[in-house]
Amino acid sequence: MAQTRSLEVGGKPVAAGKVPLICTPVVGRTEPAVLAETAAVLSKKPDLLEWRVDFFEGIGRTGEVVDLARKIRLAAGGVPIIFTRRSAMEGGEPTHITEAQVIDLYGAICESRTVDFVDYELANPSESVRAVRAASRRHGVGMIMSFHDFKRTPPLDEILGKFKHAERSGADVAKVAAMPQGLEDVLAVLSATLKASREVGIPLISMSMGPYGSVSRMLGGLFGSAVSFAVGKSASAPGQIPVDDLRTVLAIIDRALGDSRR
Amino acid sequence: MAQTRSLEVGGKPVAAGKVPLICTPVVGRTEPAVLAETAAVLSKKPDLLEWRVDFFEGIGRTGEVVDLARKIRLAAGGVPIIFTRRSAMEGGEPTHITEAQVIDLYGAICESRTVDFVDYELANPSESVRAVRAASRRHGVGMIMSFHDFKRTPPLDEILGKFKHAERSGADVAKVAAMPQGLEDVLAVLSATLKASREVGIPLISMSMGPYGSVSRMLGGLFGSAVSFAVGKSASAPGQIPVDDLRTVLAIIDRALGDSRR
Repeated sequence: MAQTRSLEVGGKPVAAGKVPLICTPVVGRTEPAVLAETAAVLSKKPDLLEWRVDFFEGIGRTGEVVDLARKIRLAAGGVPIIFTRRSAMEGGEPTHITEAQVIDLYGAICESRTVDFVDYELANPSESVRAVRAASRRHGVGMIMSFHDFKRTPPLDEILGKFKHAERSGADVAKVAAMPQGLEDVLAVLSATLKASREVGIPLISMSMGPYGSVSRMLGGLFGSAVSFAVGKSASAPGQIPVDDLRTVLAIIDRALGDSRR
Repeated sequence: MAQTRSLEVGGKPVAAGKVPLICTPVVGRTEPAVLAETAAVLSKKPDLLEWRVDFFEGIGRTGEVVDLARKIRLAAGGVPIIFTRRSAMEGGEPTHITEAQVIDLYGAICESRTVDFVDYELANPSESVRAVRAASRRHGVGMIMSFHDFKRTPPLDEILGKFKHAERSGADVAKVAAMPQGLEDVLAVLSATLKASREVGIPLISMSMGPYGSVSRMLGGLFGSAVSFAVGKSASAPGQIPVDDLRTVLAIIDRALGDSRR
């Protein structure tokens, strides 16, 4: 009943348009750790990998990042990759590089075509967003524009506004993640996503975080969210559940919905 | 975060206050069918049994009903029993007995003390509700007052009003079941239940029906619903999922919530 749009790579929906796609984060601090984690999470057969480069201690050395991205790409064997530097302000790991360096890093990664998507926060200065958009577009890399609030959940209309803002800014995918202060907030995220699925023309990703928000990671696909992040080896945000648990719940929901879903 | 109140039998919470309780319906048409079904669903270890007497072809012969209730009681081995004649107007099977006969039947069942709860619709004339309330109270049987809409879902405030109406009418438990016309309606039932859990002083049972509503049967316990109905052998309403599937999802939600629930 939600119009869930799938992420596309090379003009084709990822995993043949499966809803939701399961994405496992990779959060290692060193190259060996990242590669070991990549191998471990791939054994869980995710639909997408997200490399959270803000966890990587070599983030300041662009050549090293691109080199590691290439190794992840090879290991991933065709599983599409999202490259994400989550800013500390939106829940990422503190790093010691400037925003200008981050934009250069995104540019180098796009140029290397070692990833399928980059994720960049909408809260950054609009010229930064435009720079990353230009680099990603030039090299055929998809761009996720995201909004995170680790403290609270904006009202429904504001969440809807974030999705629309991403679309207006030229995103390929719009993402909102917010921390609930009560179960009402979990419902607000689901409700806003459902509304956005009808009013916004690009794929959406949404989640309510933390323990109570974890149910939004199970149900989000029904309400219009294209991707659910789940733990392959280590969580990258609060409330992510293990891939196997997520897959089990999704199969039960699929059975319960039966033909009504198609 | 919801204040989920548990159903009580003999002043003690059923299944030590587990949330939600799993209730399996029994819908056989003949005595042998009812008893075979009772045995089959008990093998799934539900927390509650609901005998839907409107499916029973002997519903017009009170002595036969009481006799069968006694046999179910013996078979149930301590699992609490809800006795329900669902009216055809609220989704039950058509029967050929008058409402006066139904009230007499409820009176006889209460007197026999073969069940722990009776469920009776709030939409019945208030003198009928009072009569069932008086009989159940006299014999120490709990009373669930219920509202069902198999076509649509009332707005949030109206759902809340149904719970409050049941409380004002002296119910021990208030139940609302409604058919969603969209996923918004599933969220409305969860949201109304959450609100009612804070504003109504008796245990609540709620569900959104049909395939999409099935997710409310998985999450309802979080939002204040004390009971989730699941299929032991046959469904009694649309959207019920198998007991084993429900238990699997509840265990995954429990793990995801971890200590935050307690």
